[in-house]
Amino acid sequence: MEDNKLLDMLMQTPGEYISGEEISRRLGISRTAVWKQINKLRLEGYEFEAISRRGYRLVSKPDKLEYTDVIKALKTNSFGQRLKLIDVTTSTQEEMRLLAEQGAPSGSLIIAEEQTSGRGRHGRKWLSPAGKGIWMSLLLRPELPLSCAPQLTLLCAVAVCRAIRAVTGVNTGIKWPNDLLVDGRKVCGILIESVGEDELIRYCVAGMGIDVNLGIEDYPADLKGIASSLKIESGRDCDRALLIGAVMNEFEKLYELYLEQGFTPIGHLWEALSVTIGKKITVKTARGEIQGTADGLDPSGALILKSNDGQNINIFSGEVQLG
Amino acid sequence: MEDNKLLDMLMQTPGEYISGEEISRRLGISRTAVWKQINKLRLEGYEFEAISRRGYRLVSKPDKLEYTDVIKALKTNSFGQRLKLIDVTTSTQEEMRLLAEQGAPSGSLIIAEEQTSGRGRHGRKWLSPAGKGIWMSLLLRPELPLSCAPQLTLLCAVAVCRAIRAVTGVNTGIKWPNDLLVDGRKVCGILIESVGEDELIRYCVAGMGIDVNLGIEDYPADLKGIASSLKIESGRDCDRALLIGAVMNEFEKLYELYLEQGFTPIGHLWEALSVTIGKKITVKTARGEIQGTADGLDPSGALILKSNDGQNINIFSGEVQLG
Repeated sequence: MEDNKLLDMLMQTPGEYISGEEISRRLGISRTAVWKQINKLRLEGYEFEAISRRGYRLVSKPDKLEYTDVIKALKTNSFGQRLKLIDVTTSTQEEMRLLAEQGAPSGSLIIAEEQTSGRGRHGRKWLSPAGKGIWMSLLLRPELPLSCAPQLTLLCAVAVCRAIRAVTGVNTGIKWPNDLLVDGRKVCGILIESVGEDELIRYCVAGMGIDVNLGIEDYPADLKGIASSLKIESGRDCDRALLIGAVMNEFEKLYELYLEQGFTPIGHLWEALSVTIGKKITVKTARGEIQGTADGLDPSGALILKSNDGQNINIFSGEVQLG
Repeated sequence: MEDNKLLDMLMQTPGEYISGEEISRRLGISRTAVWKQINKLRLEGYEFEAISRRGYRLVSKPDKLEYTDVIKALKTNSFGQRLKLIDVTTSTQEEMRLLAEQGAPSGSLIIAEEQTSGRGRHGRKWLSPAGKGIWMSLLLRPELPLSCAPQLTLLCAVAVCRAIRAVTGVNTGIKWPNDLLVDGRKVCGILIESVGEDELIRYCVAGMGIDVNLGIEDYPADLKGIASSLKIESGRDCDRALLIGAVMNEFEKLYELYLEQGFTPIGHLWEALSVTIGKKITVKTARGEIQGTADGLDPSGALILKSNDGQNINIFSGEVQLG
């Protein structure tokens, strides 16, 4: 509580110094207590300048997601309205699966500032440093057959892609099924985990990892040239709360369209944003590699590959490489 | 350990009494200790007759699954070979999902003597009294698209149905998708829970609840006439270890056939055992009730319903009622 009073005081006079003595007098605490609070705030990411005889000055605030900022950015009925913000977790997917098993409602959203074991497809590690990205998991409970889950994967990619384009202007495209790329560099990964009972979906957890404000220095050597962030691509910081809101708004709109009209309109939107369609690609499947030209989506969401000998092959799963 | 010596002694002389004094002398323990061990064994389900001056006699053993008996009944490469027997658990499905998340291999099997929260489809409770049935969960890790999961549901029904027929001679049939019935009474329920990542299956847990040796008195009023057991239908006790082995043997054989040749041969076997095909049925779906005649399975495993106005409708999910 007192932290906030001290912060409020420093934030009310941006750029100006306030002496430790004055803070101490106004808050009615000792100068040692002032110093301790300043240090505590520094650990939370606030930066202060301290000059002897002049006092303290707030230099910068941490980019921390605020509950109210996210809620304010939502224009949804349910998506994101049940919101849990976490400072640090192993993985928002694991957190959400626990909540799902406890009966959390469709539309529940968990966002973490940092993930220590963020996961991508095939158990790959997903870099998720504190405060730099959007690491979040959305719970869906559609009353649909399990065979529809892959369509939700494509729908999610469309929603995030459209939100990123609208908020940042960065020209992202979708690589089948759900990687978001800018000039071949990945700025967002999506992972939909589905739990089904016999032929029905019980729930899906849509995991989204968006590299928002990472700098070049944040990427280890093996990701340089492969991964990138919206900040690197646009040259600007991006307001994460605004982007989260835009993703939820797009996602809910498309989800309702899908439940009403089926996959056809979603498939058209996906194809329009795709960087795969019309390109020469190589697909690594469990049964080996296939080469050909990506021709479109079939009604189920499978990728139609026109192989080099003229056959149409439906790809239900596999890793796509352009070229 | 000493329990076993006492048991061994009583089992070596079936029908005869051994005096407490003699047991005490032979095992080198006090007569109070003998009495305590007898009581402990009684709690485990052993029945003894105790007559003063004559001693103790073993009347009956609990029907308890023995690890070695189950293993002996297996003719499989992997199904059931990693076996965990549990006295009592909430649900073998939950137990297996925990093991699956920890990386247990395909073919792992958990069997419980008793489930306190056994589950059927749609979260319904499944009666699972101690020692009377087969309550088990098998882990599968097929490298298949998620859309194949419903086919595994049908495959599992075929495997259990064939095993029951072979071991007990009871003429069970399959109601779409996976209930096993004898003259309309349910003797086995199957629930396949699938966990997928994007378009791929990560793992499936096939839950099977077979009412083996339940008596009429074991069923509450609301299940009478609806549920039945193999013992009630055949008039004989059934060796549970043998039946578990038969299910695993059938299941692995059909699973390998499926991975090699796809769903077509499985679909034919399913149709041959079905009590649904050719019958007038009512299907309750999320969108309401449909009536018609069950005509067969489509290549994906959906039920083809010829509606009363002559249309063919593919049923992907729903509750089937005969008549």
